[in-house]
Amino acid sequence: MKKIKSDIIIENGVVLTVDENDTIIKKGAVAVLDGKIIGVDEEATIKENFSAAKKIDAKEGIIMPGLINTHTHLAMSLLRGVADDVSLNSWLRDYIFPLEEQFMDKTSVYAGSMLSCAEMALSGTTTFCDMYFFEKEVGRAAEKIGIRGVIGEGIVASGKDEEKIWQKKKELTTELVKKFSRSKLISIGVKPHSPYTCSGKILQKAKKFSKERGLLYVVHLAETEEEFSDFKKSEGLTPTQYLEKLGVLDGSTLAAHCVWMEDGDSDIFKKHEVKISHCPQSNMKLGSGIAPVVKFLKKGIIVSLGTDGAASNNTLDMFSEMKAAALLAKVNNQDPQAFSAKEAVHMATIKGAEALGKKAEIGSLKVGKKADIIIVGLDKPHLTPIYNYYSHLVYCANGTDVETSIVDGRVVMLNKRIKNADLADIMKKANFIATKIKKGAQARIT
Amino acid sequence: MKKIKSDIIIENGVVLTVDENDTIIKKGAVAVLDGKIIGVDEEATIKENFSAAKKIDAKEGIIMPGLINTHTHLAMSLLRGVADDVSLNSWLRDYIFPLEEQFMDKTSVYAGSMLSCAEMALSGTTTFCDMYFFEKEVGRAAEKIGIRGVIGEGIVASGKDEEKIWQKKKELTTELVKKFSRSKLISIGVKPHSPYTCSGKILQKAKKFSKERGLLYVVHLAETEEEFSDFKKSEGLTPTQYLEKLGVLDGSTLAAHCVWMEDGDSDIFKKHEVKISHCPQSNMKLGSGIAPVVKFLKKGIIVSLGTDGAASNNTLDMFSEMKAAALLAKVNNQDPQAFSAKEAVHMATIKGAEALGKKAEIGSLKVGKKADIIIVGLDKPHLTPIYNYYSHLVYCANGTDVETSIVDGRVVMLNKRIKNADLADIMKKANFIATKIKKGAQARIT
Repeated sequence: MKKIKSDIIIENGVVLTVDENDTIIKKGAVAVLDGKIIGVDEEATIKENFSAAKKIDAKEGIIMPGLINTHTHLAMSLLRGVADDVSLNSWLRDYIFPLEEQFMDKTSVYAGSMLSCAEMALSGTTTFCDMYFFEKEVGRAAEKIGIRGVIGEGIVASGKDEEKIWQKKKELTTELVKKFSRSKLISIGVKPHSPYTCSGKILQKAKKFSKERGLLYVVHLAETEEEFSDFKKSEGLTPTQYLEKLGVLDGSTLAAHCVWMEDGDSDIFKKHEVKISHCPQSNMKLGSGIAPVVKFLKKGIIVSLGTDGAASNNTLDMFSEMKAAALLAKVNNQDPQAFSAKEAVHMATIKGAEALGKKAEIGSLKVGKKADIIIVGLDKPHLTPIYNYYSHLVYCANGTDVETSIVDGRVVMLNKRIKNADLADIMKKANFIATKIKKGAQARIT
Repeated sequence: MKKIKSDIIIENGVVLTVDENDTIIKKGAVAVLDGKIIGVDEEATIKENFSAAKKIDAKEGIIMPGLINTHTHLAMSLLRGVADDVSLNSWLRDYIFPLEEQFMDKTSVYAGSMLSCAEMALSGTTTFCDMYFFEKEVGRAAEKIGIRGVIGEGIVASGKDEEKIWQKKKELTTELVKKFSRSKLISIGVKPHSPYTCSGKILQKAKKFSKERGLLYVVHLAETEEEFSDFKKSEGLTPTQYLEKLGVLDGSTLAAHCVWMEDGDSDIFKKHEVKISHCPQSNMKLGSGIAPVVKFLKKGIIVSLGTDGAASNNTLDMFSEMKAAALLAKVNNQDPQAFSAKEAVHMATIKGAEALGKKAEIGSLKVGKKADIIIVGLDKPHLTPIYNYYSHLVYCANGTDVETSIVDGRVVMLNKRIKNADLADIMKKANFIATKIKKGAQARIT
């Protein structure tokens, strides 16, 4: 029998498919051709049926879908740790906003995004969803490293200039759509920052525009108590009720944070099929509060996971985020059964795909899906012995345990080495900009 | 001028001393002789004054005191992940207790402790405080790998056999004291498990014995709501008030967990100078609750950090524990200023030393102290750029970033390699026992 041609076979691993049945293949392999998965099976079967141009040995590690980080501000890795342990207001107004104003130009955004894409490739994140400015640079960086992303210009527009700003952002978004129209990796979203930084009119125009173009709509929502009580005061509504009233909630809306909710708010999410990006470590670190994740899940709402920017986390490690999500939900409900390791893995993979409107393409290892695949090495004391793969991924592993990352069938990180860029150069450029930021910030460098 | 002889000079790093002034030496070095620190200074000054038998290049990483994990059950790494996401009662009664009964013999405790000591050496923990059984084996493992530890037999004794059990445990403890009397690494504690597993009489006898021998007294306290409400019901007292009434609280008492407290309980701790081992990740994972750490700190109580056993965490990574401690305190107080990164580092170093009665010996880099030193590598994307060392250690680093660990002036891990034992063999032995446990447990292996 003639074998079917493949580009890569990943073999000698435990295949954690994250498919509908959560199938695990103990001695499995995955075959890849032209960026897609063409075989997921027992290793013997794969070897029998496919020839391979290249083989990757998983060394008895876990072969699983790449992780999907649904809320990032990639360029902010340049501000990693510049202002910690300060009040949220001071963090934003004394540090982040002025530093962004002064230092975050095209060059910095590219350098910061390169740094973040390298960090993601090294720690097993194969898809991100980013909101910032100079997003063309974010897309360029992602393509350079080889990571998949949904990029979009953050829109802050209320008051007298709002229409002008909106027109400019619409134009930029249209340019992004055009520039990346043939990209295999980059898609575009419309990303009004939040209900408190955009007027109702702008939020609606952005929704109308995103619908016309078929683009994802991403917004920060109900992150802080201040936001919540301000809307209750000014509108007599929760932020969620306010967005519903504006008519901007639907199945293509991805709301980040969703910490401050009234009882009925999750019903609103459910009704309109709004997706959530849960960012537990950012919410903890900024003291924002605890999102009612278990409640969301019970209602059948799609909850994905996001690290937020590295200025409020301070890494892009999705393993750390999975652990935090599970542990926080357990302690918040005072119930170790409130949230399972498997749920955390789903949130970081298949539910992330669904949140980005890409469930048919990524998030699990299935024939026909895009080949976004990572290998997690297990041959280490902190991962020994092993009884349960999900448990190890969530409670024991960290990003450093990822050995290899493949996106769209291309190896972007192999045995801890970035393939498509010079890591030392990326770090050097980031450090160069940080030297200037340091001076500008008069940061507490202790 | 003739140079002073040293065994090791660690150079080319940022020295984070954790001394009284939190001195940081940007281009510093540390000189070590006969297990002790004999110089901490600018690199140029160290080089001028000391000759070195051996030099270790910190490669511009952080040179800091080894981390101190004040609450472990090392052998439980063999049960890492055997029963997650189940109720606390089922976890204990359906899994942990029967598995311990069936599989945790002398051989297993040694194998599990070797695994844990290797994990600790690799992740920068240089001192632990352990409570389990067959503790002689724990001490042997620690000496083999070269880690410092306060070991002690866990005492579970109430009801009709309590006196017999106590006599046996006293005997075992006396044997431990004798066996390790010349050890540079191992000291002994008296460790009654908890107020709910030991009678009041036994708790008092253990205290009397520990006082006579000058040994640390370690007890689990107020971990769960059940324990708390049971004591309120049966004694009309909180667990903390109950221990005070028994007269077992003093400056040599280390209480682990301390989650369920009434307002006055922290005053009791303060009055008697009781030390706390805070175990945030274990408390989160088992859904036990959130210890009022910020309150403890405000009262000036010494709070150290513990990972607890790897069956409820599931690693021994003190970096992860520092991050969890900081993030949980912030979100619990809804205040990002409630807990600082520097505080987390103090808890994992100098306050750990104080909790174990070893402040004069370890926990900071000072001339005269024992040479327990680690190097944290910084040349990685997730640690780039750097504005604040404490922030990076707590919010960005993980155990894998530790490059080298030195205990008592001996290198136990160099450039990620264990020095005194064969890591592959340690993992093989652990996996062999785990195979048997797996069968015994009919664990949910998914």
